Amino acid sequence: MTTEQTPPVPGPKPLRADARRNRARLLEVAEAVFAEQGTGASTEEVARRANVGIATVFRHFPTKEALLEAVLIRRLEQLAEEGRRLLAESGPTEALFALFDLIVEASPVKNAFAAALADAGVDVGAAAAEAGHALHAVLSELLSGAQRAGAVRKDLEVPELIAILVGTARMLEHLDGHPASAARARAVVRDGLRPPVAG
Amino acid sequence: MTTEQTPPVPGPKPLRADARRNRARLLEVAEAVFAEQGTGASTEEVARRANVGIATVFRHFPTKEALLEAVLIRRLEQLAEEGRRLLAESGPTEALFALFDLIVEASPVKNAFAAALADAGVDVGAAAAEAGHALHAVLSELLSGAQRAGAVRKDLEVPELIAILVGTARMLEHLDGHPASAARARAVVRDGLRPPVAG
Repeated sequence: MTTEQTPPVPGPKPLRADARRNRARLLEVAEAVFAEQGTGASTEEVARRANVGIATVFRHFPTKEALLEAVLIRRLEQLAEEGRRLLAESGPTEALFALFDLIVEASPVKNAFAAALADAGVDVGAAAAEAGHALHAVLSELLSGAQRAGAVRKDLEVPELIAILVGTARMLEHLDGHPASAARARAVVRDGLRPPVAG
Repeated sequence: MTTEQTPPVPGPKPLRADARRNRARLLEVAEAVFAEQGTGASTEEVARRANVGIATVFRHFPTKEALLEAVLIRRLEQLAEEGRRLLAESGPTEALFALFDLIVEASPVKNAFAAALADAGVDVGAAAAEAGHALHAVLSELLSGAQRAGAVRKDLEVPELIAILVGTARMLEHLDGHPASAARARAVVRDGLRPPVAG
């Protein structure tokens, strides 16, 4: 809720409030268009759907890749925000499992964006690093909280939690169109995250 | 242990015993060469390491793709055989978990072969279908046995078991070089396959 921000490193000059709103709206429209038509959708289509001229899109996003990258970063930021909101609302365990599901569901979209950017020679690793760190921090906080509550196995660390997210997304991709099988595969992972039964 | 085989569909004429042995040996050498050097390794290198002329390799495998495909099919067949051997030796539950690990470990190699064949325009789905079916049948038998023994959740079916194999391979690929994390990720899946604790 800070109203003033001093950029820690020299960067583009801050956008005025209306320019910020326009940028946010363009990202929202772009996300919808890419979700419907794939990452091959044109910048022109985004402009048309946002009811602005193509010049307006290019003012905010000089290239199609800049637009794809901004949408990807916005998704990561939204997941981190959602994690924090869930934590405040319902405690770490419920929040962790809910965020787990959200990330797994967002993963095919994220992968499609990452693939499109990699094809264009953009290093997504670097570009999305900051947003990725924020999400990483939220996951780490939820994991510790759920472990303290005794709801998740104590030995689990963030790197394998992320690998399990990636692997679960792959499972569900494999079971696309088979919701009953997908639900059972999710249950396997979800139950496996719980502390093992002594014996 | 059948010594006579009647091919169910018209196929290439049966190889003489020594030709069969040569073919098997070439496949073994080819697998080692591809494992060491990747699927980009040349047929010449396979011939050199097998101590035969290139013409001998081409007599058995007219193209590099035919060789890659035969190695992939042999891996699938070996996994199915190994599953049957494990079942006979140690019962369905141990056999299922052991075969699970073997398939997950074989997966990166299998994927590299499948990718190389897809790049060459070969439809691996069709090519390896028969070997895939045999492995599928063994998995199904081990799964039912382990479920009857009460060691695996009753609701699990083969499609999601295969998806879980694919997803676990992806997890471990993500954790390559981090064996402690990989062991914990494996434990999550393994425990998740067990029947859920009532509560």
